[in-house]
Amino acid sequence: MASSVTPTPLLKDELDIVIPTIRNLDFLEMWRPFFQPYHLIIVQDGDPSKVINVPEGFDYELYNRNDINRILGPKASCISFKDSACRCFGYMVSKKKYIFTIDDDCFVAKDPSGNDINALEQHIKNLLSPSTPFFFNTLYDPYREGADFVRGYPFSLREGVSTAVSHGLWLNIPDYDAPTQLVKPRERNTRFVDAVMTIPKGTLFPMCGMNLAFDRELIGPAMYFGLMGDGQPIGRYDDMWAGWCIKVICDHLGLGVKTGLPYIWHSKASNPFVNLKKEYKGIYWQEELIPFFQAATLPKECTTVQSCYKELSKQVKAKLGKVDEYFITLADAMLTWIEAWDELNPVAEKVSNGK
Amino acid sequence: MASSVTPTPLLKDELDIVIPTIRNLDFLEMWRPFFQPYHLIIVQDGDPSKVINVPEGFDYELYNRNDINRILGPKASCISFKDSACRCFGYMVSKKKYIFTIDDDCFVAKDPSGNDINALEQHIKNLLSPSTPFFFNTLYDPYREGADFVRGYPFSLREGVSTAVSHGLWLNIPDYDAPTQLVKPRERNTRFVDAVMTIPKGTLFPMCGMNLAFDRELIGPAMYFGLMGDGQPIGRYDDMWAGWCIKVICDHLGLGVKTGLPYIWHSKASNPFVNLKKEYKGIYWQEELIPFFQAATLPKECTTVQSCYKELSKQVKAKLGKVDEYFITLADAMLTWIEAWDELNPVAEKVSNGK
Repeated sequence: MASSVTPTPLLKDELDIVIPTIRNLDFLEMWRPFFQPYHLIIVQDGDPSKVINVPEGFDYELYNRNDINRILGPKASCISFKDSACRCFGYMVSKKKYIFTIDDDCFVAKDPSGNDINALEQHIKNLLSPSTPFFFNTLYDPYREGADFVRGYPFSLREGVSTAVSHGLWLNIPDYDAPTQLVKPRERNTRFVDAVMTIPKGTLFPMCGMNLAFDRELIGPAMYFGLMGDGQPIGRYDDMWAGWCIKVICDHLGLGVKTGLPYIWHSKASNPFVNLKKEYKGIYWQEELIPFFQAATLPKECTTVQSCYKELSKQVKAKLGKVDEYFITLADAMLTWIEAWDELNPVAEKVSNGK
Repeated sequence: MASSVTPTPLLKDELDIVIPTIRNLDFLEMWRPFFQPYHLIIVQDGDPSKVINVPEGFDYELYNRNDINRILGPKASCISFKDSACRCFGYMVSKKKYIFTIDDDCFVAKDPSGNDINALEQHIKNLLSPSTPFFFNTLYDPYREGADFVRGYPFSLREGVSTAVSHGLWLNIPDYDAPTQLVKPRERNTRFVDAVMTIPKGTLFPMCGMNLAFDRELIGPAMYFGLMGDGQPIGRYDDMWAGWCIKVICDHLGLGVKTGLPYIWHSKASNPFVNLKKEYKGIYWQEELIPFFQAATLPKECTTVQSCYKELSKQVKAKLGKVDEYFITLADAMLTWIEAWDELNPVAEKVSNGK
């Protein structure tokens, strides 16, 4: 039996951990056994003169707003300020194939047997095994130990497709919007659902950036967290925006998006009143955004993430510009983001162009 | 806290349990605490002269092949013989709103705490709470105790839609096809996934008939298990066929299909060599059937299950008739089934027409 268990590759030289923060990173102490082998990219939000303490022994690079402005010049306008959306700058400066991003109020969760969950290891498993977006498997991830495709699953679809995104979940404080937080202030997520599944093609989902991993080479240029926070009319839609964009593009390019395991322990609910102020326009706008993304199709000529994303930006400007002029600014920022991405990742672009 | 727990309605006068069988129903002993309040419809497969013993104390009606022939006359040709597909006759003669169907090799499973799972109660919960086919909720069923819609879930979609089908799963022997059974003879499903979820609109799934419940009024006329077994070129695709048809129709009519809990304990793997003989054409054909059902659309004028099903039968004949002449026979049987359904359920049809 032991011989059938394949150890999960660490990928320690192929993965960066991206953490947006405004405070000292004491939360890393709990993650030390799991994160210490990896390189961290810390994106400091807010006042750049503040010193962020990182516990000893971690290998990291840290960027504050001054660094972002220096590196991107005028293109720094596409990176949000005073919002955790700034984390996507870390995706851009990474030189690794994989990214894991986590919030600094997220701790190690325990599985039902009381063991610490190595969230990163599970994300790596998710990313390294295929996805099955074209047909639903009722026993969930067919590639997991002890599972397979059930009767009636077409054999031609059993190889699956490459997995671009692994979306993890949260025990304790669930990722609720402000109205739900207000209505259910005491609700805690205690249900450990032992499953990973592919989100089917054509289905959108609310992607949370708290506990998320992805393959930069496959989908990185679409992982833009938009314009949020300081000077912008909304907040807390950064990850949602990225989730809608990446899903449309993954569906178009035939890539997979998984959700489920791993869980992290989300320690603290953010202030629902502050959240309501950030969200209220988003709550209203999303009623038009979702139908837009559900209906969005990309032309066959779009064969790279970059070209897909530029096309999507055009459609955002044309169709969502009518909802609010914010989306015109956002569409422009999407293009700036791609330009900045390609500037910092010239090799990756050549590979894409050379297909 | 106690006041917030709503007891699940028994629906004992609104639900029939349909069991296809060729043997004595001793398996009911284990289900007695859960099934005894309900009426059973037993569909005896194979030799009608054989006497099926039903444990004392159960309220049941039993139909053998002679009964089916007598009741349906020439239309009995649409009911399979020597195949558990005959169970759908039970759906047709029922006068109740809900059906739960279970195989006679399925026993009561235990949850991770060691408690017996009342599968029927969970199916009723699933059917009585809405489905969410238009957008994926990452915390699974948002209507469950302790769960809700997550941030980014459009508020306009939070009422959900009526649930037509509840598909339950199996611990111990998984529902594998013959090739997978042959390759993994010892694989057992031991993973209890504590989730119920809606299968998104536009996504097909392999519906297993072993542990299945549905709302007859919403979807009954489409729950036809096809022509299998004696005199037919395939077997073990009865529930799959029904699953593809009901999913296309539920998507068209805006009805929900759920999968996940409850689990039953599936005791015995069927013979993989026998299964291979039954399945091999299906394994080949399904490669064309799935794209057919994925592409199938129904015209707006189809507003009843019956009219949807008749339209689907037309498309089956036109498009799958080329795959094999079996599908021409099957398309005709689909029409015969609807005629027989309407004959036995005249009131239900009036209600549908009166919309």
